[in-house]
Amino acid sequence: MTSVLISLSSFGAAETGRHGQLWCAQLARAAGADSVEVRGELLRDAATELPPMAGLASVYSSPEGLWAEGGWLDSAALKRGIAAATTLGAQRLKMSIGAFGPGSHGSLWGLKVQLAETRVELVIENDQTVAAGSLPAMLAFFDAADRAGLDLGMTFDMGNWHWLGECPLRAAEALARRVRYVHCKGVQRLPAKWVAVPLADSVAPWRAVLRALPGDVPRAIEYPLVGDDLMAVTRDQVALLRSL
Amino acid sequence: MTSVLISLSSFGAAETGRHGQLWCAQLARAAGADSVEVRGELLRDAATELPPMAGLASVYSSPEGLWAEGGWLDSAALKRGIAAATTLGAQRLKMSIGAFGPGSHGSLWGLKVQLAETRVELVIENDQTVAAGSLPAMLAFFDAADRAGLDLGMTFDMGNWHWLGECPLRAAEALARRVRYVHCKGVQRLPAKWVAVPLADSVAPWRAVLRALPGDVPRAIEYPLVGDDLMAVTRDQVALLRSL
Amino acid sequence: MTSVLISLSSFGAAETGRHGQLWCAQLARAAGADSVEVRGELLRDAATELPPMAGLASVYSSPEGLWAEGGWLDSAALKRGIAAATTLGAQRLKMSIGAFGPGSHGSLWGLKVQLAETRVELVIENDQTVAAGSLPAMLAFFDAADRAGLDLGMTFDMGNWHWLGECPLRAAEALARRVRYVHCKGVQRLPAKWVAVPLADSVAPWRAVLRALPGDVPRAIEYPLVGDDLMAVTRDQVALLRSL
Repeated sequence: MTSVLISLSSFGAAETGRHGQLWCAQLARAAGADSVEVRGELLRDAATELPPMAGLASVYSSPEGLWAEGGWLDSAALKRGIAAATTLGAQRLKMSIGAFGPGSHGSLWGLKVQLAETRVELVIENDQTVAAGSLPAMLAFFDAADRAGLDLGMTFDMGNWHWLGECPLRAAEALARRVRYVHCKGVQRLPAKWVAVPLADSVAPWRAVLRALPGDVPRAIEYPLVGDDLMAVTRDQVALLRSL
Repeated sequence: MTSVLISLSSFGAAETGRHGQLWCAQLARAAGADSVEVRGELLRDAATELPPMAGLASVYSSPEGLWAEGGWLDSAALKRGIAAATTLGAQRLKMSIGAFGPGSHGSLWGLKVQLAETRVELVIENDQTVAAGSLPAMLAFFDAADRAGLDLGMTFDMGNWHWLGECPLRAAEALARRVRYVHCKGVQRLPAKWVAVPLADSVAPWRAVLRALPGDVPRAIEYPLVGDDLMAVTRDQVALLRSL
Repeated sequence: MTSVLISLSSFGAAETGRHGQLWCAQLARAAGADSVEVRGELLRDAATELPPMAGLASVYSSPEGLWAEGGWLDSAALKRGIAAATTLGAQRLKMSIGAFGPGSHGSLWGLKVQLAETRVELVIENDQTVAAGSLPAMLAFFDAADRAGLDLGMTFDMGNWHWLGECPLRAAEALARRVRYVHCKGVQRLPAKWVAVPLADSVAPWRAVLRALPGDVPRAIEYPLVGDDLMAVTRDQVALLRSL
């Protein structure tokens, strides 16, 4: 059965700041989620916050790009991500490719070496930037990774494509065989910006997108979970995702 | 030439309640519609309301699902639908599959027997529920019907797919060969819900969807017809649909 | 490299009326555009306004349809368009097909003769009317032009498809081989109408649409350029288009 996760960013910066990600992770588990994704950008002090969450999370999300400005591999960022995932006992580290470009191909060998030294699995996410989220950028990256003999999987974020003017259904079809983890996110358009919403409120053809992706990979909620009864809201959304 | 119908629900519950469906049917015909679809859920007293509409309607829409909770065939509901269509002299009965599921396959033989006893043609509509409106549900149902030797056609509702996060264009392509009747419905998204609007106001690629469907099947207006001069509004919308 | 143009209608009727298209063309060039498209409908006096713009524009946009009501070729309108383009020294004349219909096929030979007498290249644009902007209309026209031995290219307007309920991505795929010029236009839907917006604010999958089109043809901005610092706004939008 597909496992259902919650990206802890779904609880919002205010809530995670007030209660900490451990509290949110426990709420997520109590609401029926199989596991959670811990967010690096919402940690105030990784050294004290990560160890107590050991065993609760299966994914650590790093806010750092894997390639830095200029196109060089940010080995230190990768190392920090692997260390955090290891502390959590999380199998997976999620990162975006950052400023990966044509000049970065050589560094894929360095990445390969570094990944061979850990049991943490790196999964690459499409974010909301042209360089690390548009379809040509993702295809070019995975193609280069293939040629370097790197077997990398993808975190497919269903919603981010809209921020870039990409068609999520076409993207799903083009990338399906890479996908090992899905970020579920509905979208609506305000006059000035896209916003993330629950799947059921999305203007996107989200069922068709989900069907175009592998059905047996973990799926995470990554849209705002808010409400007077946060536990009930979370339980409902987990149940919805599980029912798909 | 494609015939143009009006689903009488287009006039709204208030208007049909005030004037009755007979009055609405007469207005529809006067406005140029070839026929109408009578709505079961808007009848207050079928026994007195249906007979006077005999000859005016070519479709009767039943509000009941063909399979009830638990997945058993609701033969009584089907019987009621056939009876209403017969009273109207309507060739077609429109129903959704309700709670049809994997356990319902055996009952398709009973449906076949029951349909063999009437000249009324059953057409299955995609509604706004996952069980009776999502693409996998429709494909699974028609596949099972095929295997049971049932030659069932579909009422393709252009708008309902949006309520479910399905892509209407992909759905049209997947189901085109089943389609014998089209419910024309534009859609717009409000923050909290989808709403039905005239085709010309739709955010959907409605011309592309219509083109993906058979061009020689009846098409019905199923979006709000409102305005100070209801006859003029109706005449315009009928003319638009006829011009496509 | 793809050249970047600005359709001068992007500055709005008020601004072009106040300052004239020459002023706008100069601003466009100063902001980094390679060239501009002069708009016939925004000229008050072509005889005095066009000559000073000679050398600044590579496209002249005629507001007249190439075929008039009734389906006859409007040779005079074509002549006026060619004359304006010639005065400007513009290589291209952009027109829509107007009321071209099945009865117009014979007149394609007349068009062929008329085009043989000029070095100005006619490019046909999809507009916001059913007759001259829907996908079947465009395909039927180009098919007829082919059969008449006319090698006509297309101005693909990315946004206009939405006004007609067409899918821009499907249209791009169907017409890509015809396209010699692209009008870049984002869209948003207000309750009562579609509006043109910058690409980055579009609800459409504009990157996917652009990718489906030839990458080596000129692209023009055709969405509102407004702001306190019009030069800065224009420079930014030109730079964005150039970066694609």
